[in-house]
Amino acid sequence: MAIAGLYRRLLPSPPAIEFASSEGKQLFTEAIQSGTMENFYRLISNFQTQSEMTYCGLASLSMVLNALAIDPGRKWKGPWRWFDESMLDYCEPLEEVRARGISFRKLVGLAQCAGAEVQAFRTNQSSIRDFRKYVLRCSTSDDCHLISSYYRGALKQTGAGHYSPIGGYHAGKDMALILDVARFKYPPHWVPLTLLWDAMDRVVDGTTGQRRGFMLISRPHKEPGLLCTLA
Amino acid sequence: MAIAGLYRRLLPSPPAIEFASSEGKQLFTEAIQSGTMENFYRLISNFQTQSEMTYCGLASLSMVLNALAIDPGRKWKGPWRWFDESMLDYCEPLEEVRARGISFRKLVGLAQCAGAEVQAFRTNQSSIRDFRKYVLRCSTSDDCHLISSYYRGALKQTGAGHYSPIGGYHAGKDMALILDVARFKYPPHWVPLTLLWDAMDRVVDGTTGQRRGFMLISRPHKEPGLLCTLA
Repeated sequence: MAIAGLYRRLLPSPPAIEFASSEGKQLFTEAIQSGTMENFYRLISNFQTQSEMTYCGLASLSMVLNALAIDPGRKWKGPWRWFDESMLDYCEPLEEVRARGISFRKLVGLAQCAGAEVQAFRTNQSSIRDFRKYVLRCSTSDDCHLISSYYRGALKQTGAGHYSPIGGYHAGKDMALILDVARFKYPPHWVPLTLLWDAMDRVVDGTTGQRRGFMLISRPHKEPGLLCTLA
Repeated sequence: MAIAGLYRRLLPSPPAIEFASSEGKQLFTEAIQSGTMENFYRLISNFQTQSEMTYCGLASLSMVLNALAIDPGRKWKGPWRWFDESMLDYCEPLEEVRARGISFRKLVGLAQCAGAEVQAFRTNQSSIRDFRKYVLRCSTSDDCHLISSYYRGALKQTGAGHYSPIGGYHAGKDMALILDVARFKYPPHWVPLTLLWDAMDRVVDGTTGQRRGFMLISRPHKEPGLLCTLA
């Protein structure tokens, strides 16, 4: 009897290079030596799987908030305060996110309400040059992390819109490490930055012509904490 | 008003060295160069937080089974087959584990039922020399992973018995990387292997004198799949 369902997908490679492959390890060690994996340590320490098919945005943000050691200001389980997707319910009810996913604008709002500082860019308000500059900035420190909103098809992957954090950068090869939160589907992988830009530079809303993009998230200068009340 | 609950614990250091600290990064890059971080890539790609206070065993095993690409043979969410703590319910009801945690013997059973090959050792049936040999073996390949059952007090940490996988080894310094699944409490950290042995070499059952220990988990030679039915 055939087993129902799917066990992962084969990562289309090229264009991607699997993190745990020989080539991926080589890129990783070179990038460490170049000082462009500084954000990797805290981010990978909080790597998580999106717990629902539409929670890629919430899982990406939860990872980043934990990596930045931002205190959610309320309890998660037992006595512990900790970010998990279930804690990111104060801008939009989780039922809504479960049904439709979360918009770029609302994800930015969630990050701000959680007490993070956010700089958000749609591709039409930015350039690949700026994107590369921000990827480089975040990969050379551990005080900011970048979440990309991209179209999987541009990477030959199945699926449509997706969010995931960027775990590091290889400047020599101009490749970024995507820590794909849909870990049941694809493992972490390196992709050419130009292709990732192309995957972000896609219309997300036919009416407004609005595009995908990326957001830089960092610790605020002020005391972090939950700034917004439940909507 | 004071916020209720706890936001992490300060990692007692020494004896531990935080993975994301300068010293931790230094150990990491040296260990990569020595070829004793080969298991790290797939294991860290599946690093997860224990979702209940008593699920350290289930979270550790789930990480390892996903890292070994063992197919659970049944669906998790949507169409996807994937291990999560909630999938490890076929030897002991999750309610039991939630109430009391899981014993070493039952965790071994769960791993076997999931289709993995398991070699389990209590410290009184093994030696630190053998332990080091197994840590070295697993850290130089990505086809086996080691879960340690240890007493946190020996590492000056709060809490009692705990399970976590070993993410790599630094032979020169004789230190092991603990990927602590209680990520809301402690980040990943390096500890002296001799101290980890001491933390495992503790009586877990006063009546039988049974001790803690470790288990090596690898892919079976036979076709993996769920071998046991729900108990």
